Amino acid sequence: MAKRSGGRNARVALRSAPLAEELRPVRAGLAGGWYKPLSENDVASIHASALQVLEEIGLADAPPSGIEAMRAAGATYGEDKRLRFAPAMVEEMLKKAARNITLHGRNAKHDLVLSPNKVHYGTGGAAVHIVDSESRNYRDPTLADLYQTARLAEHLEHVHYFQRPMVTRDVEDNYELDINTLYACLSGTQKHIGVSYQDISHMAGAFDLLHMAAGSEEKWRERPFASNSNCFVVPPLKFATESCLVMEECIRGGMPVLMLSAGQAGATAPASITGAIVQAVAECLAGFIYVNCIKPGASAIFGLWPFVSDLRSGAMSGGSGEQALLTAACAQMGNFYGLPTGSAAGMADSKLPDLQAGYEKGISNVMAGLAGLNMVYESIGMHASLLGFSLESMIIDNDMIGQCLRCVRGIDVTPESMAVETIREVCLEGPGHYLGHQQTLNLMQTEYIYPVMGDRTSPKEWAEVGKPELLEAATAEKNRILATPNRVALPPHIDAAIRQKHPIRLPKIGSFHAKAS
Amino acid sequence: MAKRSGGRNARVALRSAPLAEELRPVRAGLAGGWYKPLSENDVASIHASALQVLEEIGLADAPPSGIEAMRAAGATYGEDKRLRFAPAMVEEMLKKAARNITLHGRNAKHDLVLSPNKVHYGTGGAAVHIVDSESRNYRDPTLADLYQTARLAEHLEHVHYFQRPMVTRDVEDNYELDINTLYACLSGTQKHIGVSYQDISHMAGAFDLLHMAAGSEEKWRERPFASNSNCFVVPPLKFATESCLVMEECIRGGMPVLMLSAGQAGATAPASITGAIVQAVAECLAGFIYVNCIKPGASAIFGLWPFVSDLRSGAMSGGSGEQALLTAACAQMGNFYGLPTGSAAGMADSKLPDLQAGYEKGISNVMAGLAGLNMVYESIGMHASLLGFSLESMIIDNDMIGQCLRCVRGIDVTPESMAVETIREVCLEGPGHYLGHQQTLNLMQTEYIYPVMGDRTSPKEWAEVGKPELLEAATAEKNRILATPNRVALPPHIDAAIRQKHPIRLPKIGSFHAKAS
Repeated sequence: MAKRSGGRNARVALRSAPLAEELRPVRAGLAGGWYKPLSENDVASIHASALQVLEEIGLADAPPSGIEAMRAAGATYGEDKRLRFAPAMVEEMLKKAARNITLHGRNAKHDLVLSPNKVHYGTGGAAVHIVDSESRNYRDPTLADLYQTARLAEHLEHVHYFQRPMVTRDVEDNYELDINTLYACLSGTQKHIGVSYQDISHMAGAFDLLHMAAGSEEKWRERPFASNSNCFVVPPLKFATESCLVMEECIRGGMPVLMLSAGQAGATAPASITGAIVQAVAECLAGFIYVNCIKPGASAIFGLWPFVSDLRSGAMSGGSGEQALLTAACAQMGNFYGLPTGSAAGMADSKLPDLQAGYEKGISNVMAGLAGLNMVYESIGMHASLLGFSLESMIIDNDMIGQCLRCVRGIDVTPESMAVETIREVCLEGPGHYLGHQQTLNLMQTEYIYPVMGDRTSPKEWAEVGKPELLEAATAEKNRILATPNRVALPPHIDAAIRQKHPIRLPKIGSFHAKAS
Repeated sequence: MAKRSGGRNARVALRSAPLAEELRPVRAGLAGGWYKPLSENDVASIHASALQVLEEIGLADAPPSGIEAMRAAGATYGEDKRLRFAPAMVEEMLKKAARNITLHGRNAKHDLVLSPNKVHYGTGGAAVHIVDSESRNYRDPTLADLYQTARLAEHLEHVHYFQRPMVTRDVEDNYELDINTLYACLSGTQKHIGVSYQDISHMAGAFDLLHMAAGSEEKWRERPFASNSNCFVVPPLKFATESCLVMEECIRGGMPVLMLSAGQAGATAPASITGAIVQAVAECLAGFIYVNCIKPGASAIFGLWPFVSDLRSGAMSGGSGEQALLTAACAQMGNFYGLPTGSAAGMADSKLPDLQAGYEKGISNVMAGLAGLNMVYESIGMHASLLGFSLESMIIDNDMIGQCLRCVRGIDVTPESMAVETIREVCLEGPGHYLGHQQTLNLMQTEYIYPVMGDRTSPKEWAEVGKPELLEAATAEKNRILATPNRVALPPHIDAAIRQKHPIRLPKIGSFHAKAS
């Protein structure tokens, strides 16, 4: 009987066959929500406390335009210059908020739909160092690093979007830095990109570049393929005046905004995990009120983003268990509101790609996914609590994210997967094992995923192939990817036009390829 | 105002004060169950399928004593020599099963109570190699390795019990191996230990040693401080005849049994994750029927333990995402029955303590804990899909388990932790930050845990202290612990008596200490 013979050959044959997209075991947008760190009562209590904070304490430092817009919608402006919001107003503004928003890729196959519990992993952050793993050095990031990182993001299966994860240091002028950062991201990947602006005077140039890259302003507004990471609040409970103006400008320009509240528990947020959540929820609700006062239904992401401090030193500890809990609870709160959610996981305190970095990243990333966080930022490549970025870790982390996604996908429980008939056949009639059984062959590529870099050899096989080291293998894979031609860069005529109009510092894309290979 | 001043000094002072046991942020037996990979319907369907398997397919190869005991309780024995169990019989025997059992330590402070969802992490397995991380060598384990590993288990805060994780290779005689394994474990730690026997003729000697260690048979039976890991089934659905006899003997001798079904999905269990669970549940239910036929209410652990294969090669992949899901679902099934649960997590495929090993261990360990697994075996020190054990990884993994436990503990949501008054005070009256606030100081040691080995320095501090490498630090910590005097070994007069009666190969404990330092 064919179905019981040739197990190994059949497996090898199957392995080389390509798998239809819809059969792939994991993909962007799988549904989490299996893990709920908070009870329903807890969620309701936190919501009630956040409403109390908004009504009684409110936020200071909104810019005049924000004060005007929010007062017009019902906020009160006190003598202490704080805006306060009655619960009814919060509920009303939440009704206006956009849900199920799409973050577009420059290529539509990379579009991400942020419905509740749908999980996407990507980069993020503002690392000020590149981790040179081989020499164990922390050095300044360059535009070339950023471009290469974008290229890796394009190639790595489980990286669903690319928010610039580092601040490059080889461009001194801040305007040129913003323009070149945008250009480097766009040149390396067609996945959705994320950028960040602190200065409203830089926005016109950035939008012009985006319009050129899209083909026209109209095309950009149809499918905005970049979003803005916006620190609209200085916790506790003060609007970041300039960032709020940037946010207003983004909304007018059709760019989705990630409204992020990044308090640090024990420093700029309460030390209790619950208190840090309450404050972040209050701040993000205020942010969403603001957004929807400027334009009802504008695309925005509810960015509950509280960080954990090591209370002994006051320093941030993104790799802690407390942080993993905090991020997962934030995902749950965002899903409670039915809003698009974004937060941070995968931050390692460790400076190098070692065992500590691995468990720190693995624990927080899988918890964020299982809790149903829409956008898991900073999930890949990060070290030193966001201060360092490693391209080699990014390559290795891609497998980790694949594994997290497999866990998010969960277990298919169906009459067929229950396998009672298979068990009966194997035990009562068959060979007494499941190797080569048709069910095994069918599930080999649809139920199981396989790592690219991860080593699964036995100790004997591992010794026979020379005990390969993970970091060396990752470096080789990085070089291999960077040596492939860039097929997703901006079309040459658009690139030429952009270079004529904007102060682009990155060498022409072709020259990079020659250098890398 | 005192409460707002001296933040750093106050923190430093607090840091050096010892913390009362009940205030420690994490400990053995925290309650998980936040994460449920299966819906209630899924659980009911899997239970129904397992009942169908037991009724229609049944199990082969029970020893005559087991056939007799189970037939007497209502099982049918078919012409095909398979025992089958009607659903009503299964339900009836489940009512007799012991719940909330205690696994005793030789010291009562290490007792573990296995109530539903209460989580304990420990070692386990039968590694045939010691990973020499420095030389990247896999070598044979010795009795001295096992003894030293037991000593580390005694010292490491988050290792709650010590099942022997390796099979030593320097004792050729199998009886002497069993006796010396037991002795090495007992000499190194007072935490609950786990051993395993394949040969019933070794049991009398083992029990004699246990009675001597306890002081008398009566004292042993009062607080049995060792359990037996029992592979009572050869999946699919065949009793392991000899192991079943060992199990019967354990029960008669008052030793708790871990009844473990370790099928391999795609080889000895169905390839579908659900099918692997169904088969394991059916097998463990049969095991529990057997146990409770021998002695109703005997202490036993429901050991759903299915492994995942890499279906391309057929080799086991304990570090896979599929494995993490499988283990978590097994915890949920065991909690559904309200039985004491044990399964495996923390298995890394990676051969070395690297980034891959870290995320593999972290993901599966945290998921097992969040799912409320009572006994997370193999959670620490494992490599190469259980074939290798690393003492250095054990040291590092202890921090990882602390972090997992912090996540299992969850988030305290109380009016006080909500911190609305703290937020009000800080924002409206106070300094605008939470550093040095009384709440921050209060929570510093009760809400947050701190790693022993894990490095949280900034890149600058890290460079200043010479860029310490995790593995080197772990090696130093291992040597430090092993150089401390062993204060938990068996009392000298008992030790001398045991050595006179049993073929103990391990040198006297004092000589070890001299060697290690």
